[in-house]
Amino acid sequence: MHLYSVDDRSVVVVDIFRATSCMVTALANGVTSISPFAKLEDCLAMKTQGYDTAGERDGKKVDGFDHGNSPFEYMVAEMKGKRLAFTTTNGTQAIAKSLGAREIIIGSFLNLSAVAGHLKNSGNNVLVVCAGWKGKFNLEDTLFAGALVDLLEGEYFPECDSPIAAKHLYLAARNDMKAFLSNASHVKRLAKLNVFKDIEFCLTPDVYNVVPVLREGLLTV
Amino acid sequence: MHLYSVDDRSVVVVDIFRATSCMVTALANGVTSISPFAKLEDCLAMKTQGYDTAGERDGKKVDGFDHGNSPFEYMVAEMKGKRLAFTTTNGTQAIAKSLGAREIIIGSFLNLSAVAGHLKNSGNNVLVVCAGWKGKFNLEDTLFAGALVDLLEGEYFPECDSPIAAKHLYLAARNDMKAFLSNASHVKRLAKLNVFKDIEFCLTPDVYNVVPVLREGLLTV
Repeated sequence: MHLYSVDDRSVVVVDIFRATSCMVTALANGVTSISPFAKLEDCLAMKTQGYDTAGERDGKKVDGFDHGNSPFEYMVAEMKGKRLAFTTTNGTQAIAKSLGAREIIIGSFLNLSAVAGHLKNSGNNVLVVCAGWKGKFNLEDTLFAGALVDLLEGEYFPECDSPIAAKHLYLAARNDMKAFLSNASHVKRLAKLNVFKDIEFCLTPDVYNVVPVLREGLLTV
Repeated sequence: MHLYSVDDRSVVVVDIFRATSCMVTALANGVTSISPFAKLEDCLAMKTQGYDTAGERDGKKVDGFDHGNSPFEYMVAEMKGKRLAFTTTNGTQAIAKSLGAREIIIGSFLNLSAVAGHLKNSGNNVLVVCAGWKGKFNLEDTLFAGALVDLLEGEYFPECDSPIAAKHLYLAARNDMKAFLSNASHVKRLAKLNVFKDIEFCLTPDVYNVVPVLREGLLTV
């Protein structure tokens, strides 16, 4: 990330499995706001201030946290009106690294077209920050980036080769993303945790028409 | 690169356009050895020790250097028996960053199958270091990585998602790599320098059956 400026850009943070998919689901289902934290202890400290704690480490719910990292946990009626303090292995780190951007928004397949529409209206340059896994490249976040590049075709132009590669990968994958991702490292990791339903849901495009935006440390729609 | 250990691995350094393609061509055509340098001034200093200086900055031959960065310069009879001091914008930096590896070898499409055969015999774990452009991802080096992954299928297994993505990109590109790369950033850069012949040659698989190996700072076959 240090090779790209963010101060003139809309930064789209993406962690498909499952941080940004959860955030989009939660905010689309009536959660009032989400405060993302890179550090677990900072997140936990919010409990005393009326926040529900949420998230994971290494794919698993954190001991003592109120909620985990499955989007299905955030669809239930009792989440309405809650304020969440959220921390995950990769997604909230990616948000922390994007601070200083002109704008930070949250992307997932669940709100793909909404994100594309928002970017077209903004007129800003764009950086898609794929959270990956502990700093390493991963396939699913890149597929989302490629889907976004595909939707913005003709209006945005690649600054480097990454968007070109991402689009090629998305075009190769889009007819059956689940099969395409069957060898992906994080899908294997999640399969051990038995969250196949989450994987399928997180790959579904345009379930929600919301664009979470970070303002003063708070994600809202 | 800091996320991957190198001490237990064969590291394949690749800079298709054009550093590693030149190195392979030079050594296959009778150059005795190549000393790679990350810094221009270190390279230039070798001139007083009987070395020819060679390489580029930003794609262009360096003022005062004996040779540039086109593989065709290294096919001529007068190169035989020469010792080269070589520096390039990306390729020789990638070699410098790989120091400490169990083994460093030079890969290009020109010696693709030779590299694959060497790796199969070595039994070492492998890291393919794509030089890219000033630290950023590029397409052509990744296509080479994907071609190598394809050749090693069933004998090596991906540690992360990068080799999986590289292979998908290679499979999408292999029928017409030149067309696939037409939007790639470095192809556009090189097109301005009018080196189409170099681009075509550097994408040709298995022209040479040599594997340059770095030993005590010297690349030889």
